[in-house]
Amino acid sequence: MTKHVFDKALALAHSDIRVGHFTGMTSPDYWNMVGPFGGTTAAVMLQSVLQHPDLLGAPIALTVNYAAAIEAGNFDLQATAVRTNRSTQHWTVQMTQAGADGAPRVTTTATVVTAVRRDTWSQNDTPMPPASPPAEVARMEAGPRGVAWVGQYEMRPIHGAVPSVWDGTGTHSETRLWMRDAVPRALDFAALTAMSDMFFPRVWLRRATVVPAGTVSITTYFHADAAQLCAVGTGYVMGRASAQQFCNGFFDQAAQLWSEAGALLATSNQIVYFKE
Amino acid sequence: MTKHVFDKALALAHSDIRVGHFTGMTSPDYWNMVGPFGGTTAAVMLQSVLQHPDLLGAPIALTVNYAAAIEAGNFDLQATAVRTNRSTQHWTVQMTQAGADGAPRVTTTATVVTAVRRDTWSQNDTPMPPASPPAEVARMEAGPRGVAWVGQYEMRPIHGAVPSVWDGTGTHSETRLWMRDAVPRALDFAALTAMSDMFFPRVWLRRATVVPAGTVSITTYFHADAAQLCAVGTGYVMGRASAQQFCNGFFDQAAQLWSEAGALLATSNQIVYFKE
Repeated sequence: MTKHVFDKALALAHSDIRVGHFTGMTSPDYWNMVGPFGGTTAAVMLQSVLQHPDLLGAPIALTVNYAAAIEAGNFDLQATAVRTNRSTQHWTVQMTQAGADGAPRVTTTATVVTAVRRDTWSQNDTPMPPASPPAEVARMEAGPRGVAWVGQYEMRPIHGAVPSVWDGTGTHSETRLWMRDAVPRALDFAALTAMSDMFFPRVWLRRATVVPAGTVSITTYFHADAAQLCAVGTGYVMGRASAQQFCNGFFDQAAQLWSEAGALLATSNQIVYFKE
Repeated sequence: MTKHVFDKALALAHSDIRVGHFTGMTSPDYWNMVGPFGGTTAAVMLQSVLQHPDLLGAPIALTVNYAAAIEAGNFDLQATAVRTNRSTQHWTVQMTQAGADGAPRVTTTATVVTAVRRDTWSQNDTPMPPASPPAEVARMEAGPRGVAWVGQYEMRPIHGAVPSVWDGTGTHSETRLWMRDAVPRALDFAALTAMSDMFFPRVWLRRATVVPAGTVSITTYFHADAAQLCAVGTGYVMGRASAQQFCNGFFDQAAQLWSEAGALLATSNQIVYFKE
């Protein structure tokens, strides 16, 4: 069986230098305009924790900070369990790349909380918005030339698609869409992490205008365990995202991700830099 | 002039050991049931960055992870600028306390993004909910005995106050309230950080039942600059918080904080552990 492109992008080698030190390589399959797709980078950061020999439990919270541009090529990851409690564990992760002088430079930082979940009273107060089934929603055309990562996903926008005319007439920042891997792959925490960052910059939709924009920091909360993700399998995920405010160079994006059956799998927030 | 209790809680000494190393002490004035109020801890983490000699710009994003209980007494902070760009800067912060053996143990981790803001197109898409002016909303009684921090704030709940009867009849998780320091103090980033964490656990409201609960990780995005906070002065802030989902031991709290004039100053999300 051929390895899925996403698993190739996630592939890390655990080095012998020290516990929690991994090496990997950026994926041309998930390239964005001037660097790797941020969702893949976030997934790789999480992956170093999931592959760490000391891991306790499953991911609850992930914050990834995009500190600098990532060059095509090799990178190093250091995942460190800074605190292990009875049922929760706290992690820091750093991605570095060698600079022109060969010295490591930090490109990305992350913190991760993992935990052993227990059955408790549960309640979803954020029902999935009503929508036609995926088969009845048109699939988005492949993205702009050179943006490889978009082609790795099947996206079926229900509301708030990428504007077809950039005429400055935008009135809202809400997108809802069905999405899944273009080549089927069972949902897991890494995939859900990447999908949390699949929404194009809200400022483009709100203004129907393209301006330079890039995520600075993203935080994702996982509300599901591995069994619940397993139940989704290769099925669709509904994603919803909108901004609360745009102000002097930065805006936020709040997102929710549901299974097709309506389970709220993850909620995510990011702060995005924009120009003009 | 006597120092404000919040400024006493924030007081840090920059050590000579290394750049970005600070020492401080937990504040009995902001004590919670079994440790410091998490909002004060978050503010202290941010403060180490704000007092760092290499600081560039103002806070944009702050994530604080509560890794372990903090004991009453001294703590150490290490704030490190892991990457400085032209207009943004990325920080990691760790709080440690000496364990029984004297060795430092991590109690709290944080990442901070600071940036120089530029004037751009701006738009608030999250208007402040309508409410009677603060003077017409009754002030909350002082909190339970021993919870000192509650007494440091003036809270005027508009909707979703702490239940007066714990009879399991809860139907929603939304609180809206006017708040400010009980002893007047001009709003700044540290105060806004603490206020982001002022909402009691949503699970108590949703179920009208008290269960053990504690914040695991909080992320706050600052949408205002120092001048905008300065304009608020000692005025009221309206806070709103609600949960999106409760599931197997964890729930989220999404919050917004507006000035009395309706400016959205900050948005915040946290993931909270709960039992039963």
